[in-house]
Amino acid sequence: MVIVADNLQIIRNTISGAVATGNPEPIRALVRQCAAAGADAIDINSGPLGRSPERSMAFLVATVESATDLPLMIDSANPVALAAGLAAATRPAILNGFSLEPAKVEKILPLAARTGSDIVGYLLGRDGHVPMSADERMAVAVELFQTYMDAGCDPARLILDPVVVPVTWQEGHRQAVEVLDVIRQLPDLLGYPVRTIVGLSNLTTGVSIPDRRGILERAYLPMLASAGLDMVLMNVLCPESIRIARACRMLLSNHIFSWKKV
Amino acid sequence: MVIVADNLQIIRNTISGAVATGNPEPIRALVRQCAAAGADAIDINSGPLGRSPERSMAFLVATVESATDLPLMIDSANPVALAAGLAAATRPAILNGFSLEPAKVEKILPLAARTGSDIVGYLLGRDGHVPMSADERMAVAVELFQTYMDAGCDPARLILDPVVVPVTWQEGHRQAVEVLDVIRQLPDLLGYPVRTIVGLSNLTTGVSIPDRRGILERAYLPMLASAGLDMVLMNVLCPESIRIARACRMLLSNHIFSWKKV
Repeated sequence: MVIVADNLQIIRNTISGAVATGNPEPIRALVRQCAAAGADAIDINSGPLGRSPERSMAFLVATVESATDLPLMIDSANPVALAAGLAAATRPAILNGFSLEPAKVEKILPLAARTGSDIVGYLLGRDGHVPMSADERMAVAVELFQTYMDAGCDPARLILDPVVVPVTWQEGHRQAVEVLDVIRQLPDLLGYPVRTIVGLSNLTTGVSIPDRRGILERAYLPMLASAGLDMVLMNVLCPESIRIARACRMLLSNHIFSWKKV
Repeated sequence: MVIVADNLQIIRNTISGAVATGNPEPIRALVRQCAAAGADAIDINSGPLGRSPERSMAFLVATVESATDLPLMIDSANPVALAAGLAAATRPAILNGFSLEPAKVEKILPLAARTGSDIVGYLLGRDGHVPMSADERMAVAVELFQTYMDAGCDPARLILDPVVVPVTWQEGHRQAVEVLDVIRQLPDLLGYPVRTIVGLSNLTTGVSIPDRRGILERAYLPMLASAGLDMVLMNVLCPESIRIARACRMLLSNHIFSWKKV
């Protein structure tokens, strides 16, 4: 299970300020902190990029690359920003991401097809709604996979996100359990060993007490791992959560057991 | 998922001393501590009971009952001690346990049949060896279930333990993953929604650093829970592990989400 840091978010004041003033240091410091904490990759969550999305994303990508050799995930709903980030990257980066929403199929999917980049595909309806059951997620997965293949993309480059919703939503925790079933069943459903990712902190969106967020995330993460999750987007600056992620990886690995990896 | 405290073990000096001198207080204090920590039931692990197994077990059962209303699990390899514990109990207790070993089938299983008690059945070979694969555990489960039914017992009273082994054993962590498959598949295999239990601390037997034990147990416990485990025998005096167990229970429940239950 690959651990992707979700910590680099432009909604953080230090990061938005650094982007606005073109100051790379706060960004580099955060990235180095994430790498030291155990991240295997860094997600650049650019949020709304204001008036110059291309310049801002290019700056973010170049700055993160200057601080780490870890792979990057370029995370934006803006196709122009995604293209600019990809152009600025000197190493292969993961696009995050697309869904069946027509604007994304038209603008973002061709970017993946043209560059051969890895790309995250969200199991959301065409109108952007979150499916409310495992069955609906599976139906969306079939359509999304077909759309992706029709665009001439390589299935080995696709990473599906079944979309974890907050426990505070109606039926939120039941949906979390359905997501486990979806992760388990996707390879059979699609006839392809497709990779999967989830945003772990989505489970506790809106919960303001960090300790409560942490405990639920640490209970859910091993369930995801044993369901076969390939990548997890998470807060890597919570040491106990990282240790749980590493312990899951060791328990589920085919290597000889080693405490060094826990 | 029912949380059974594994903390009352006669190998602890305070407990063996209390049994030897007939002093109930250290036992009561530990039981109250377990109940306050979140235990749903108390396992009385009597270990080797010396020269008077009947008297010792009867004393343990009476003492634990005097300290809590929680259900008891009477845990011994000695059929005489199990019978004495059951006779001393004023409330239904769970026998822990039997396996295909002939002495246990002959001496312990009839006790369950006669009293209608819940009983734990270990998936061990007839010679007491631990199966080394999921397939072998499943074969043992079929034979054990048949043996149990042939003894005239009620399948609703059976609780199967697929036997977690230490990660430090050869292939130990791979066996831990196979145990998850066994838990998932047992109801289909036996054509009965049989309950399951595991001893969580078995995973880290022989590991001397409590912090290392805890992190592995907390990574493994949610995997067990999402595989469908019904009962977990664990150290309830580790607050972080109890919180993970409760968070698992809340995530996997059909009730409305409530932080009070986490």
